[in-house]
Amino acid sequence: LQENMPEDTEKIPLIRIKDNLPFQTKEVVVREFPLTLFLNGQELVTLLCSPNHLKYLALGFLVSEGLIASREDIKKVLVDETLGIVRVETHQKPNDSTDLVFKRFITSGCGRGAAFYSPVDVSGHSKVESKTEISFQQVIALMKEFQHASELYKTTHGVHSAALSDGDKFLIFRDDIGRHNAIDKIFGECLWSGISTDQSVIVTSGRMSSEILFKVAKRGVPILISKSAPTSLSVQTASDLGVTLIGFVRGSRFDVFANDWRITGTKEESATPGNS
Amino acid sequence: LQENMPEDTEKIPLIRIKDNLPFQTKEVVVREFPLTLFLNGQELVTLLCSPNHLKYLALGFLVSEGLIASREDIKKVLVDETLGIVRVETHQKPNDSTDLVFKRFITSGCGRGAAFYSPVDVSGHSKVESKTEISFQQVIALMKEFQHASELYKTTHGVHSAALSDGDKFLIFRDDIGRHNAIDKIFGECLWSGISTDQSVIVTSGRMSSEILFKVAKRGVPILISKSAPTSLSVQTASDLGVTLIGFVRGSRFDVFANDWRITGTKEESATPGNS
Repeated sequence: LQENMPEDTEKIPLIRIKDNLPFQTKEVVVREFPLTLFLNGQELVTLLCSPNHLKYLALGFLVSEGLIASREDIKKVLVDETLGIVRVETHQKPNDSTDLVFKRFITSGCGRGAAFYSPVDVSGHSKVESKTEISFQQVIALMKEFQHASELYKTTHGVHSAALSDGDKFLIFRDDIGRHNAIDKIFGECLWSGISTDQSVIVTSGRMSSEILFKVAKRGVPILISKSAPTSLSVQTASDLGVTLIGFVRGSRFDVFANDWRITGTKEESATPGNS
Repeated sequence: LQENMPEDTEKIPLIRIKDNLPFQTKEVVVREFPLTLFLNGQELVTLLCSPNHLKYLALGFLVSEGLIASREDIKKVLVDETLGIVRVETHQKPNDSTDLVFKRFITSGCGRGAAFYSPVDVSGHSKVESKTEISFQQVIALMKEFQHASELYKTTHGVHSAALSDGDKFLIFRDDIGRHNAIDKIFGECLWSGISTDQSVIVTSGRMSSEILFKVAKRGVPILISKSAPTSLSVQTASDLGVTLIGFVRGSRFDVFANDWRITGTKEESATPGNS
């Protein structure tokens, strides 16, 4: 499947102006690929994505939206890379009322997952209870390696990366023009390949919104790490759903915004504030 | 209305780890606010946004989605900032079939506007014919001023900015956690306040996807500028829809990806390539 994937970048002609002088040149830009997802024959959504791992993207999207929960739910997956179509058939239709399925997607709209944002709905989600811990050194080392790996994709400009880690090494590393897509690709692969995520760490290059938190919590991932910022709502969501939220990882420092009990050393070692 | 706006940032407690030492501190994070939009009594979408200019965001969203086209379409707008709800009533219902309206939003899904991505739909859009031009110096100066203005928002981390310009000065400057929202806020205000956009420049801090191009073209904006990268599909869309697409504006250089005829100097002055 992966071998015939369309390229993720394209070299296109342009006019460059430099010091007031225009000249013709070429530049590599990232591809934006429309992927339309059909679930049991019904058109569900068109995702704008980087054209790699389309099957995993489709499955990850369905997982994140709660439309499938395990590989056993899946009857068939057909990917047409030329037309940009993925057709997924499930054994049981997640919802017989198309109206309800529709309603879901309307409510989530561009802010995918927005349906979950009321406090009522948060309480309906199960809390991540995993006892997995992570040390200072692991956080720093993971981000260092992550940024090194991301460098590979920097040539294309404007791609987000996400990775699944066991705390020490990366098991899956994905990139996409969309922050959400990169993470969905990981969860789609985990579902398909039977990789458990409930003792894992997700590292992301992007900002952490509440949507990302719901996505990660839904797969039982206990720790989320980014070099970027969280939003107010993502901190609240992480706190409510039991996810350890780590942001602003830069050099030898980082911030823990929620559930810091998973960071080894924050309690046991009685470090004095501010004397570093 | 604006006076009672909730704050765009929040100061939250956290554990900071620095050089292996944890200590308690506080950090400013950007607020993420769920805004639910009702059109003629029907729940349409929940947008995750920065809580400013909510009325304009709602109207801009409706404009971008083609559900309203002018201020005359609007009968009433009610904003409830506490509950995070905007209710818009129109004189004519854009579509009596709720199914069709629903279908729109499903198709666009997280990639808002995805409904437009097939070539057939592109040809259904009217091309931007504006003869507005822009000089090298204007592009450079606008980006310089834009980045200076954006600095103000950098303290909150993770906010995108967008501005409407006449080529020389900024008429509207907006920020939001979402690239799309920042631009929708501008177009919502233009619609409400009767500001014409067909000789304007939009400057954005974010990457330029095809969705942004459709949004800008729909309001007849001839020139789009960003310091960031375009995608392959946005270049194609800009080319098809007659929008001058300028990216990678950095210092004294920038790239023109489509419709370079609006850049004064690219044709008349016969500069020799590569001798800068």
